Amino acid sequence: MTHATDTLTRHPVRLRTLVAAGLLAAFPAMPAAALTTEERAKRGGEVIRSLNNGQPQPTLERMREEFPFLAEATEAYALGDVWSRPGLDTRTRQLAAVAAFAAIGETAFMKIHAGYALNAGVSEDELKEIIYMVTVPAGFPRAISAARTLSELFAERRPSEGDTP
Amino acid sequence: MTHATDTLTRHPVRLRTLVAAGLLAAFPAMPAAALTTEERAKRGGEVIRSLNNGQPQPTLERMREEFPFLAEATEAYALGDVWSRPGLDTRTRQLAAVAAFAAIGETAFMKIHAGYALNAGVSEDELKEIIYMVTVPAGFPRAISAARTLSELFAERRPSEGDTP
Amino acid sequence: MTHATDTLTRHPVRLRTLVAAGLLAAFPAMPAAALTTEERAKRGGEVIRSLNNGQPQPTLERMREEFPFLAEATEAYALGDVWSRPGLDTRTRQLAAVAAFAAIGETAFMKIHAGYALNAGVSEDELKEIIYMVTVPAGFPRAISAARTLSELFAERRPSEGDTP
Amino acid sequence: MTHATDTLTRHPVRLRTLVAAGLLAAFPAMPAAALTTEERAKRGGEVIRSLNNGQPQPTLERMREEFPFLAEATEAYALGDVWSRPGLDTRTRQLAAVAAFAAIGETAFMKIHAGYALNAGVSEDELKEIIYMVTVPAGFPRAISAARTLSELFAERRPSEGDTP
Amino acid sequence: MTHATDTLTRHPVRLRTLVAAGLLAAFPAMPAAALTTEERAKRGGEVIRSLNNGQPQPTLERMREEFPFLAEATEAYALGDVWSRPGLDTRTRQLAAVAAFAAIGETAFMKIHAGYALNAGVSEDELKEIIYMVTVPAGFPRAISAARTLSELFAERRPSEGDTP
Amino acid sequence: MTHATDTLTRHPVRLRTLVAAGLLAAFPAMPAAALTTEERAKRGGEVIRSLNNGQPQPTLERMREEFPFLAEATEAYALGDVWSRPGLDTRTRQLAAVAAFAAIGETAFMKIHAGYALNAGVSEDELKEIIYMVTVPAGFPRAISAARTLSELFAERRPSEGDTP
Repeated sequence: MTHATDTLTRHPVRLRTLVAAGLLAAFPAMPAAALTTEERAKRGGEVIRSLNNGQPQPTLERMREEFPFLAEATEAYALGDVWSRPGLDTRTRQLAAVAAFAAIGETAFMKIHAGYALNAGVSEDELKEIIYMVTVPAGFPRAISAARTLSELFAERRPSEGDTP
Repeated sequence: MTHATDTLTRHPVRLRTLVAAGLLAAFPAMPAAALTTEERAKRGGEVIRSLNNGQPQPTLERMREEFPFLAEATEAYALGDVWSRPGLDTRTRQLAAVAAFAAIGETAFMKIHAGYALNAGVSEDELKEIIYMVTVPAGFPRAISAARTLSELFAERRPSEGDTP
Repeated sequence: MTHATDTLTRHPVRLRTLVAAGLLAAFPAMPAAALTTEERAKRGGEVIRSLNNGQPQPTLERMREEFPFLAEATEAYALGDVWSRPGLDTRTRQLAAVAAFAAIGETAFMKIHAGYALNAGVSEDELKEIIYMVTVPAGFPRAISAARTLSELFAERRPSEGDTP
Repeated sequence: MTHATDTLTRHPVRLRTLVAAGLLAAFPAMPAAALTTEERAKRGGEVIRSLNNGQPQPTLERMREEFPFLAEATEAYALGDVWSRPGLDTRTRQLAAVAAFAAIGETAFMKIHAGYALNAGVSEDELKEIIYMVTVPAGFPRAISAARTLSELFAERRPSEGDTP
Repeated sequence: MTHATDTLTRHPVRLRTLVAAGLLAAFPAMPAAALTTEERAKRGGEVIRSLNNGQPQPTLERMREEFPFLAEATEAYALGDVWSRPGLDTRTRQLAAVAAFAAIGETAFMKIHAGYALNAGVSEDELKEIIYMVTVPAGFPRAISAARTLSELFAERRPSEGDTP
Repeated sequence: MTHATDTLTRHPVRLRTLVAAGLLAAFPAMPAAALTTEERAKRGGEVIRSLNNGQPQPTLERMREEFPFLAEATEAYALGDVWSRPGLDTRTRQLAAVAAFAAIGETAFMKIHAGYALNAGVSEDELKEIIYMVTVPAGFPRAISAARTLSELFAERRPSEGDTP
């Protein structure tokens, strides 16, 4: 299976490029069909760390022991396949994801992706604009709940950014 | 109320700038609180035409006679207040809106906003990326229904763009 | 109104009171726990006819053969138990039901209950107010879809109300 | 802009009438299109205080600093435009809103509006009837969650009403 | 098991058969239309105890005083009519119910029914398979939330099963 | 990577066994992590044909050209990963899927999976029981819409099963 080996060999380089390029801008011609699930999960892990300041995602880690397939699917499919796709820059994908999670009322997941968005250089004000927009498709309760969740996120991040000038 | 008068005077200029600048990039410091609903609706009408190749929005027009408040709210609040806000470029706002409408299963409204996105220079491929992403927050049926609706939209637009091979 | 008289003759005093009082205002101390399901379904049938100008409900009738339990549950539980309860006048219950069906996007069922509301003396304008309100909890797509469905209902009823100028 | 000035002049009188008349019964011919957003927000503030025993709404107040547009939209659009409309009495609008919020599973917002309903003279039993009705459009979990939330609301209000004669 | 015997004595042969057959496998030709609501509620109480290790269901009991109709409807309709139907074995009905509750995001109710499933001999692994499947129709947030709720349920049950060999 | 090679070698045998065994009963210890996406998609294709009387799934086929990633994800993830998992027999998985799709109102997808269920030996009456159950978690509109869709499915299948009395 030389092809898979090739992929593995080329993999780290691509990810380094990825991080350098501002996250996910550079997956030009990923022969995704040739990746094994193990490789896809590895790629998903890279995507998470690139979005999450180099840290693993706690929600995902908690699932690994008791719900291994769900953890693998999140890592290999959601992050490794979907989130690693080229064709959208990280900022846009994260803002669209925040809009989708807010619109369906999944505030805990919105918070995770809003945090990734901030890490990718999205501003607090841009996230607020998404929330304002959500009143139109999904009504005021969804937007107000999302606003509260964003307030929590912003507050959690401020102390840790405390000493920066 | 000189302030309101100022706003009215400055209004056409701002909208011209808006259209020129590639839609909504230039609402720097709109004193929105001083606008009357009539002015907000006018602004919403401008936003629609700027998104919709200069045309009115048929769904909105059909509501005017029988559901005047809903037509006004759509025009003055949704378009005139929310969609005319600065802080997000048109492309990003439209892609996030497409994500939200697709995630909640409102394909007819997604189609309208996907059309606006295409008008604003978003590519078909970028819209597809949004749909792929929607599988994660909202599941496969919502994404597949959105994909079908996008296919319709793409097909409707191809004939009208002439006989190019 | 011989049809109503016929119905009244075949049914207990309570139902006559009900019809006389403007549908459902008078179920003061229904010992519902003592009714059999057959009696509850009969009561549900009365409720439907009282809401539907003496006619059976086509959606319900279509289910009888192939989904008998669902037809029975709709008749005995939804109409016979819930809709026959005292404690809310028919107008208020129908308007609240229209709001609930519209908010969850179930326009076909909203249409049925909006029709019942019109039969109970609710005005078209009151139904429109419910739809306007729905923009707040559930967003604009749900309200706009409900508005279109109401337009259909209003249009269907106008011919059957004759050539009045 | 004499028209706007007229509106402002007439405004306090109308709102006083509104409160006197039992909340919202008297907005006979509001030329809403001539109101500025500032005026609409003021009107929304009045609506809230009239619904909320003269108090501001804490959820709204918390949003003002961090999500000013959402606070303004809630106040000027949701309360100032929608909730101040004539055409439905306060009791009916609140009961319909409770039904809509319960049906979509937004219990926190349902609680706010159920509190307004109690303030407007709706009885606990009428609110329970709305919840019973919600089992039909939206299923038992939504109704049972709404019932629990109403129980909390009823319990919170009983002590504070303790000393009233 | 004198309690069960007591129950059996007070109830018709059909219920004895039911309990003997391992819950609900034997309701061959229930003339349900002839049952009164009181009898249906009694039957629902039997179903609950058979699913819940002989115990009443706390959520239901809490509703009895303040929301008597909702408690009765849950007992007589949901449990007494729907859950006592023949045609599906308990395992399948519970797994399908778990899938439905998880897909609509009602994790608290999913937990109750997942507990019933475990009582009926469904394995933890089978419940996990249902949750994995839910990613497809309803997306990852619903499945991940359901997974967390199942984790809680599994943890709650392990101590109490501690002393069994 | 001998492990992966092993998997590949054993792969066709396993799939033949799968089909022979009446669908999915035999995936005892799939080292799924070693499969490439191409192999997962192939496996998904097998699952579809085994569920769909040997035929490809038209909805999926239509997506291949314009939404290739969504087609691949449906085939490799939804069918190839989730639906090919051991741990649930096909009947139970299909009935749970039908419950989930019906509860979230996705009747078109419910119809596809109800068809697969019938192919796997589930009876029409068992599908009806699932629909009856759905009234409890998701309310009557979802159940009634699902019932209508099942009626269509049953009707479509009857002619094609010939003129049997």
